Amino acid sequence: MQASVFSGAREVQAVSPGDRGLAYGDGLFETMRVHRGALPWWDAHWARLALGAARLDIRLPDAGQVREAAEALFANGDSGVLKLLLTRGAGSRGYAPDPAHAPTWIVSRHPLPPEPGAGLVLRWCDTRLARQPALAGIKHCNRLEHVLARAECDRAGVDDGLLRDCDGQVVSATAGNVFVLHDDAWVTPPLERCGVAGTCRAALLEPLRARVEPLPPGAVESADAVFLCNAVRGILPVARLGARTWPPHPAVAGARRILARLHPGFSPDNLSLEDPDT
Amino acid sequence: MQASVFSGAREVQAVSPGDRGLAYGDGLFETMRVHRGALPWWDAHWARLALGAARLDIRLPDAGQVREAAEALFANGDSGVLKLLLTRGAGSRGYAPDPAHAPTWIVSRHPLPPEPGAGLVLRWCDTRLARQPALAGIKHCNRLEHVLARAECDRAGVDDGLLRDCDGQVVSATAGNVFVLHDDAWVTPPLERCGVAGTCRAALLEPLRARVEPLPPGAVESADAVFLCNAVRGILPVARLGARTWPPHPAVAGARRILARLHPGFSPDNLSLEDPDT
Repeated sequence: MQASVFSGAREVQAVSPGDRGLAYGDGLFETMRVHRGALPWWDAHWARLALGAARLDIRLPDAGQVREAAEALFANGDSGVLKLLLTRGAGSRGYAPDPAHAPTWIVSRHPLPPEPGAGLVLRWCDTRLARQPALAGIKHCNRLEHVLARAECDRAGVDDGLLRDCDGQVVSATAGNVFVLHDDAWVTPPLERCGVAGTCRAALLEPLRARVEPLPPGAVESADAVFLCNAVRGILPVARLGARTWPPHPAVAGARRILARLHPGFSPDNLSLEDPDT
Repeated sequence: MQASVFSGAREVQAVSPGDRGLAYGDGLFETMRVHRGALPWWDAHWARLALGAARLDIRLPDAGQVREAAEALFANGDSGVLKLLLTRGAGSRGYAPDPAHAPTWIVSRHPLPPEPGAGLVLRWCDTRLARQPALAGIKHCNRLEHVLARAECDRAGVDDGLLRDCDGQVVSATAGNVFVLHDDAWVTPPLERCGVAGTCRAALLEPLRARVEPLPPGAVESADAVFLCNAVRGILPVARLGARTWPPHPAVAGARRILARLHPGFSPDNLSLEDPDT
């Protein structure tokens, strides 16, 4: 992993063993798709990071310096994945945050994940997402629920899983938001009580004229089409959830064409394999 | 901060920027009171760590090696605080845990916190603890709720705060469990849905013949006495919660005498300041 670590404005050799990110998951992160050295959705990712930093009262580093460090990792014009991690920084023992602490931030470079084949195979995760409005929506680093749910999926040999909250309503997949199609209208669940408000979800809401509505599990299983989305892999059609299967659907193909116009990394080249409609 | 960092059995110079503790709070910790170089409650702390590691499926390092590294930090016979942090280790990007990863563990040495004066001043925290049975009881590193609650206390200028769950039941303080006295009987709330099952709480349950029962806020305010406890500071009498005040109570003094027999670090010397009964 190629990474640069900073404490405030200063590049450092290593993360302190007393970093609060390590101690308490006291931080935020963004993961974005880099297209030929460029960061098409940088502004959206930075806006969400700033929202999370305001919510948690974590100091933001200088936006220009972070972007420069991020772009430097892809100066050769490659495509890939950029991860940006921001923590409250190193501190003394104990939960009390110290406003004087310089935040720690790390930019790191990762390869693109493989393109999905003929659609994802999902399961219903047993792990539930706790209801916590104070942390909902932002992409914070308290992700043990997602780690446990992802481990379930690995054990079951499926691509991903759908997560429900403690009331049984559908929230998201482990690594993406979920959209379902009913009567030619897209629906995606609200994220005020748990879950992450994804950058790709936000980009799609208006162009798809999607409704944000509570999503019971039955409304996924009865949907005409289902896709997951995130800012690294774009739109991922769902082919199977338990016993339910879905053939490729033209509305998903249409959503992918829209997304390709919003981010050149999600261009039709990447869609051709599993999308007979384009 | 004096600290030693290990990856599996190997001591390393620094924590990897790709450590999953940093990325997801994917780890566990223990904080314990060291008395003249000795770790009286080591076995209890290790047992809880092992329980958490089993729950999260994190590999445990060799118990003997960890204890040796911990004791080496206090080889001069000082008293103080030892923190032990265990994470799933460094991994590739994404939530999926890799069973092959060597765990990261860090032992660090910290000063003893100041002894409490004439009893703690508390508030009711606005931050609620989410209900998450999969993570309840263990001392994992997803602690943003505690960080937010602790920040509330600092802003309000109080010593600590009581946390309620999403149903309004009392769970704990930000840095300790809570016991309340009613009709000469101690009660402490259950921790199956949220909260941390403290080592000091566990040590006190039997000798105090405490009942584990749901604790509504009113039952704290109407209590004859209230104390917080943790494995670093022992028993901390509560003097005030909002408008409610409590004078020193002989039953709290009695509990402190019991605790002093269970851990020499909590000896009467430390109790004399605020406890007129001993």
